[in-house]
Amino acid sequence: MACRCRFHRRLKDSGIGYLPNKTVYLDYNATAPVDPGVLGAFEAACRRSWGNPSSLHAAGVEAWELVEGVRQGIGQLLNLDPDGIHFCTGGTEALHAGIFGYIARHGGFFGNSSNGNSSSGNSFSSASVGAGVPSCRIISTRIEHSSLEHPLFMARHTGIPVEYLSVDSQGKIDLQELKTLVLPEDLVVLSPVNHETGSRQPVGEIFKVVHEAGGILMLDAVQAAARLSPSEWTPYCHMAAVSGHKIYAPKGIGFLYKRPGLRISRFRFGGGQEGGMFPGTENVPGIASLGRAFEMMEKNRSEESAVLATLSRETPWILKKQGVEMVVESPADAVPGVLNLSFPWINDMETFLYRLNKENICVSRFSACTERVGGESRILTEMGRGPGRASTSLRIAFGRWSKREDIFTLARILVGMQRAFNV
Amino acid sequence: MACRCRFHRRLKDSGIGYLPNKTVYLDYNATAPVDPGVLGAFEAACRRSWGNPSSLHAAGVEAWELVEGVRQGIGQLLNLDPDGIHFCTGGTEALHAGIFGYIARHGGFFGNSSNGNSSSGNSFSSASVGAGVPSCRIISTRIEHSSLEHPLFMARHTGIPVEYLSVDSQGKIDLQELKTLVLPEDLVVLSPVNHETGSRQPVGEIFKVVHEAGGILMLDAVQAAARLSPSEWTPYCHMAAVSGHKIYAPKGIGFLYKRPGLRISRFRFGGGQEGGMFPGTENVPGIASLGRAFEMMEKNRSEESAVLATLSRETPWILKKQGVEMVVESPADAVPGVLNLSFPWINDMETFLYRLNKENICVSRFSACTERVGGESRILTEMGRGPGRASTSLRIAFGRWSKREDIFTLARILVGMQRAFNV
Repeated sequence: MACRCRFHRRLKDSGIGYLPNKTVYLDYNATAPVDPGVLGAFEAACRRSWGNPSSLHAAGVEAWELVEGVRQGIGQLLNLDPDGIHFCTGGTEALHAGIFGYIARHGGFFGNSSNGNSSSGNSFSSASVGAGVPSCRIISTRIEHSSLEHPLFMARHTGIPVEYLSVDSQGKIDLQELKTLVLPEDLVVLSPVNHETGSRQPVGEIFKVVHEAGGILMLDAVQAAARLSPSEWTPYCHMAAVSGHKIYAPKGIGFLYKRPGLRISRFRFGGGQEGGMFPGTENVPGIASLGRAFEMMEKNRSEESAVLATLSRETPWILKKQGVEMVVESPADAVPGVLNLSFPWINDMETFLYRLNKENICVSRFSACTERVGGESRILTEMGRGPGRASTSLRIAFGRWSKREDIFTLARILVGMQRAFNV
Repeated sequence: MACRCRFHRRLKDSGIGYLPNKTVYLDYNATAPVDPGVLGAFEAACRRSWGNPSSLHAAGVEAWELVEGVRQGIGQLLNLDPDGIHFCTGGTEALHAGIFGYIARHGGFFGNSSNGNSSSGNSFSSASVGAGVPSCRIISTRIEHSSLEHPLFMARHTGIPVEYLSVDSQGKIDLQELKTLVLPEDLVVLSPVNHETGSRQPVGEIFKVVHEAGGILMLDAVQAAARLSPSEWTPYCHMAAVSGHKIYAPKGIGFLYKRPGLRISRFRFGGGQEGGMFPGTENVPGIASLGRAFEMMEKNRSEESAVLATLSRETPWILKKQGVEMVVESPADAVPGVLNLSFPWINDMETFLYRLNKENICVSRFSACTERVGGESRILTEMGRGPGRASTSLRIAFGRWSKREDIFTLARILVGMQRAFNV
């Protein structure tokens, strides 16, 4: 578990450091700092509700009530059935449990491990040894985050049918194509908000098509939870995956939503925690902070979204005004705060990003898990951009502590770099 | 996800609450409060090292260095190869990944999902669809915690050969029986410390037998990490599962140790985090607090163990002196701080525990995940105790904030209850 790439080592070796008061952070889609209010909830839970929720004594009951209270609270805030909320570590784990649990339930590859198990309780019914191709398919797109892309690649590799929908230049799927493709029991899984461009999917219409065809729609709602109002996505899913650390909660907490009644298989065994889906002592303070993070998020959602929308709308204006040559790659209806730009004058991406770091700018091109900085963006390529644009793109993601000043700082540095690159 | 048992509801409905300054907590084997020093490390990580460790910019590198620093630090403190430490949510997840990863690697049931995968990197090699019985067996005991008992039950149920070793009245396995049983490639998995009685296994000798036979020894070290010095268990394992919340770190963090070179299959896919074993953004502040928890633990290990040993040694004396009738079920060499006692005069366990709660005593009979308070202890039954003792047992587990006064409080209440029960 050493450094994963040359660029990481270069940053490390040159002593470029994160400076709390000087760094301009433009990568809120990768992760966000913990809000002090959320940290307060974490602390309070550690001091008061530290019992094991499964313990049958007062300290246990205290912790249990906290967990169940947060489940109810999040259910209410997001308009989701609380009984469908299963706390886990975050998006990757929730996607895994949802997708493979569903496939297994339908006789698929991983399914032989727990055929016939219900999604709750601890009873094991008889399971047949012997793998098979499931009675359903997975349908997705090629512009998903690696936490979805990799499992689907793996699924396909092992014989589970996976179909990919094409996307247009705005990153949207073709509803007609979906309608033709989806069959009863098929699992459609995609993100309502693209992590790299902020482009949206018409989830309301997608849900209608999938639901009417008798399929299941699972949303990778990791970005959506941060960028969309709950009413824009929670009514439109049978399952969803959510991470806390994109909404100012600590890393290591999130949930899988699964409509009660939808039966999927389980993969891990132990205590019966989280309806048997995620056994192991619950991350009580993490759950407390997730609850607080959602409260803070939804309370200030409209004001915060307005600020973020202004920031991402103003960025191209400001950059242009300062003379920075660029193309806006995000669609006009991208979610507030996310902006993808390409800079045709960049001829050495690593040097470009290295200099941004030297100037205390933290920004990424791809998702944090991509492990490279150069090359073409697979998302932009899928959206039909040529290599000139797909290989010079930058993702700017604003968040709670972003300010207009950050754009001016970025503009000043880009102007200088553009001059240097053009020499 | 409503209350799981009648007793839980009874406690809840009667308004019995956890009172931070009045409650006597005697259940440190279930979970422990977060040490304020550890909470400080969590907070500091949230404030300073909140980046996504995979992000290729200064904030990411900062978080990455914290994670790798803790990995090195824990490796040094526990004398484990840091490259073998894979952070995850805790014992249940680590046991799952270790056991089924190993079985899968040997062609077993879950194995068809990822045959041929190495434990690191993201490459997927060709996998055969088709389950099989693995080329190895699992060997364990019947006195393990439910986080191990349940997966083994499930494994056996689905056709994986599982053998159980008998234990004597002290909870120890028979080394001769193990020697006769274990074959090359077999996976032996057990806990060096029993969670209910504090009894020890001779892990040094067990490791020797297993290693010489060409087998693999995995330790459920969740209790051992809290109760034993690292030198008593870390040299004697090929794999191990550790939870933070038993050593005063927050819930939701722990690790799987796997000797580098030992190849096991993976189950979850996404980013390549933790050598591909546990993908998903790392729980950075949780990892920081786990590191701090181990530092504090090992720094004060000998003093703390001496105090705990005194407490568990004195408890039977004090209770006897006060006239409480009881039998000590823990062996004489039980780990410091854990004591199992049975009280033959208890004729209604639920009433007994309810009254203890009324008096602000938090104590359990079984592991927190057992979901019942009555009936016989399966651990004591396996150790040969009759129903009279196995159904009146109580587990007393002292920890960092326990004091002698707690024993006197318990004694006073037990004397009163004994009188009431005998009427």
